Amino acid sequence: MANDNEHALLSDLYQLTMMNGFLQSGIANREACFDLFFRRLPFDGGYAVAAGLEDILKYVESLRFSSEDLAYLQSLKIFPELFLRRLAEFRFTGEIRALPEGTLVFPFEPLLQVRGPLFETQYLETALLNTMNFQTLIATKAARIWESSGRASVVEFGLRRAHGPDGGLSATRAAFIGGCEGTSNLLAGKKLGIPVSGTMAHSWIMAFPDEISAFRAYANVYPEKSILLVDTFDTLREGIPHAITIGKEMKERGLSLKGIRLDSGDLAYLSMEARNMLNESGLPEVKIVASNDLDEWIVEALRHQGSRIDIWGVGTKLVTGAPDSALGGVYKLVALADESGEMRPRIKISQNVEKTTNPGEKSLYRIFDKEGQMIADVMALSHEPPPSGGPIVIHHSQVEYKFSKIDTIPRIEALLEPVFSHGKRLAPPVSLIDTQARTKSQLDALHPSHRRLTNPHTFRVGLTKALRKLKDSMIKETMERI
Amino acid sequence: MANDNEHALLSDLYQLTMMNGFLQSGIANREACFDLFFRRLPFDGGYAVAAGLEDILKYVESLRFSSEDLAYLQSLKIFPELFLRRLAEFRFTGEIRALPEGTLVFPFEPLLQVRGPLFETQYLETALLNTMNFQTLIATKAARIWESSGRASVVEFGLRRAHGPDGGLSATRAAFIGGCEGTSNLLAGKKLGIPVSGTMAHSWIMAFPDEISAFRAYANVYPEKSILLVDTFDTLREGIPHAITIGKEMKERGLSLKGIRLDSGDLAYLSMEARNMLNESGLPEVKIVASNDLDEWIVEALRHQGSRIDIWGVGTKLVTGAPDSALGGVYKLVALADESGEMRPRIKISQNVEKTTNPGEKSLYRIFDKEGQMIADVMALSHEPPPSGGPIVIHHSQVEYKFSKIDTIPRIEALLEPVFSHGKRLAPPVSLIDTQARTKSQLDALHPSHRRLTNPHTFRVGLTKALRKLKDSMIKETMERI
Repeated sequence: MANDNEHALLSDLYQLTMMNGFLQSGIANREACFDLFFRRLPFDGGYAVAAGLEDILKYVESLRFSSEDLAYLQSLKIFPELFLRRLAEFRFTGEIRALPEGTLVFPFEPLLQVRGPLFETQYLETALLNTMNFQTLIATKAARIWESSGRASVVEFGLRRAHGPDGGLSATRAAFIGGCEGTSNLLAGKKLGIPVSGTMAHSWIMAFPDEISAFRAYANVYPEKSILLVDTFDTLREGIPHAITIGKEMKERGLSLKGIRLDSGDLAYLSMEARNMLNESGLPEVKIVASNDLDEWIVEALRHQGSRIDIWGVGTKLVTGAPDSALGGVYKLVALADESGEMRPRIKISQNVEKTTNPGEKSLYRIFDKEGQMIADVMALSHEPPPSGGPIVIHHSQVEYKFSKIDTIPRIEALLEPVFSHGKRLAPPVSLIDTQARTKSQLDALHPSHRRLTNPHTFRVGLTKALRKLKDSMIKETMERI
Repeated sequence: MANDNEHALLSDLYQLTMMNGFLQSGIANREACFDLFFRRLPFDGGYAVAAGLEDILKYVESLRFSSEDLAYLQSLKIFPELFLRRLAEFRFTGEIRALPEGTLVFPFEPLLQVRGPLFETQYLETALLNTMNFQTLIATKAARIWESSGRASVVEFGLRRAHGPDGGLSATRAAFIGGCEGTSNLLAGKKLGIPVSGTMAHSWIMAFPDEISAFRAYANVYPEKSILLVDTFDTLREGIPHAITIGKEMKERGLSLKGIRLDSGDLAYLSMEARNMLNESGLPEVKIVASNDLDEWIVEALRHQGSRIDIWGVGTKLVTGAPDSALGGVYKLVALADESGEMRPRIKISQNVEKTTNPGEKSLYRIFDKEGQMIADVMALSHEPPPSGGPIVIHHSQVEYKFSKIDTIPRIEALLEPVFSHGKRLAPPVSLIDTQARTKSQLDALHPSHRRLTNPHTFRVGLTKALRKLKDSMIKETMERI
């Protein structure tokens, strides 16, 4: 996401019409608190990996409306001069608390809390959702693929199918956070320092009179980095035998063929055949790279089938988050100051119970057992002291009568960290490699039953008694009225 | 897509490693021809709408490697100085022919043909695919939704779920090409001149003591543009009655409530109830806007159920192209000059017949009947004269023995237009509204059987006899070898 003024108008018109309305209704400066959360885990999975915060902080810190932006808004003939003058001075002066990138997150938990004047906090909605929804979706997808590969080498190759340039750049970033070790995307290499790698396209082979001369030419230019694409004509009868010839030639010169790439056909069968053929030719060190519409389910199936794939090249389905293609994160008002300045919880009721919000300013805690494994997450009202010692009863977020009990709390962590205050971010950026390490250590702390692809066990997330009571009383008040 | 140098490295590493290899192998300057095409229609549909060309032309015209780009590439320690010097002078000097945006396009047809030195044409692959795959996917989705709405008002609201800033901007552009009449996306309004519109969020309602005062406040600020969101607490018992109260108040003041928005619940039932309640209250002019995870199938179903929806707000599934999320377009070498400079056709064979390419430089023709309805498309070798008069036999692209016959050719059009030559685009940009008009008139020329959502009739696309023979002989040559 952009960190420049170019994208100040990356928003929905209704944010501005509401802000102008707040101004004219005399409530623009009221203190408000919004939660950003999602209701359903992507891919029918057991967890999500938070991502996008760094880009959000850059955006919020630099958010200004340029004179061009204002001229455009004026041309719409919707907004009074007073409002546009106020926009010209717009700075985000509020506070943001957030989950660090790479943190595992579950439905209804705030990934981000924004507090500040209603006028400012309302505006952030679209850009924050745009960034967080997409990057969290892709980081989650990448973590799932990395896990299904047995935590092997996964490389992201998706730029050509990504949703525009930034759909590529942000996806590459998020995929790295989720566990990919590299990318084909040069722009991500340049801008984000993510390791780049690549093999060759069919056009390389087709540009030479025949496959073996194409292979030989490549090996001459890249004696240390050649990965030969073996499926242009016939993988078993031509591609692999030709690669073996080149591998042997290189060996004689004291060099080593790095790998071959399979890009079509039955990847399980072909990789087993390729491994045998390479080993029998004295080339056990040559790696096998596989690509072709891979996702976590196909990777898992290929491993169960005994495939011999060393490096997984994953493109389309990773960078587009297929089949979900979107995370349905929302940004909801949970508290607003009254006339006297006191914060009052707010709720949205829905016939769809899932869509009824959790009111009030909240803290989010994670409880661990003695071995450091995650037991449950608890949302509390922010004025409550953190749960400690135990036992603690945690209440279901959506269903009033459901609860569960945790006997002891060996260790508890507050998950939301203050990240933005007084117009500035509070800490320098975390490196992407450290963020990736965070994802990996968080996955280690989550029981495998929550990480499996099929019917994962639901991780417990609940409300404290005080929060559940507040929610019940607000629902009751509305239901009695209508 | 960007039209500035920022995005010169929007590419896969392997393009550069191949280009360096071409240079060192002495074939970088050979004339090459690439086709950009897809193999399968998105959404199991009957057509696709080409989009993205304008952004591609801007990109190609301005493509330069900056000193920063070159410094980054040097830091990878893969490329020799000679190659980087050549990149510093990179300009695309070749030619591009393309389908105008808004043209209906079918599998295996070139959306774009690029001809020029192998060194240059190879580099364009990633950026061209990134742009064309995404925008064609979304323009197609939009056209399908617009058609399923009975060609009613469809407004795109998807920015918060789009894949990053540009995933939003490009999606908005393509959605407009496909038939949307507006967007919520302000950046698209400013940059592309697309009409913007919007309603209000739940936070507007929740920022006031109660729903009716929230509605009244909004109507006071926007007496001509108020669309009231009626589902914050209870649509039928509170939201619509409150909106009716406001509508009547406005009427007394000589004003008019523009609409209400339904965003949850059973949209068919609620819209019918809302229409009745509004009509019975003397407010037949108030429009009903509906949103909530709509796509073409849901829109069609809602219409069949007798819903009374005037304006369709479509977000997530439109801008992400769900459930497909990607168009699998590819960029394949179809001809390359030999040592003497003569162009030779090239082919890629695959065990998957779909993946075997159509060799040679091609023209693409569309045949119309006397009423202007599309009958079939024909791919020919570019040196062949256009089919005329008839009868003509057209051969299946993938299956050797299949063919069909067209008795007369009342009218024929060459679809690929020269758009770029000698480093410059050949015509000024087409306005988006004209491009949208092109989509609509093309849809008019396509028989409804190809446009229906369920099991659409396959539109005929074939090869001339000469092209089919070339393909067969090249396949045969390869198969005899292996």
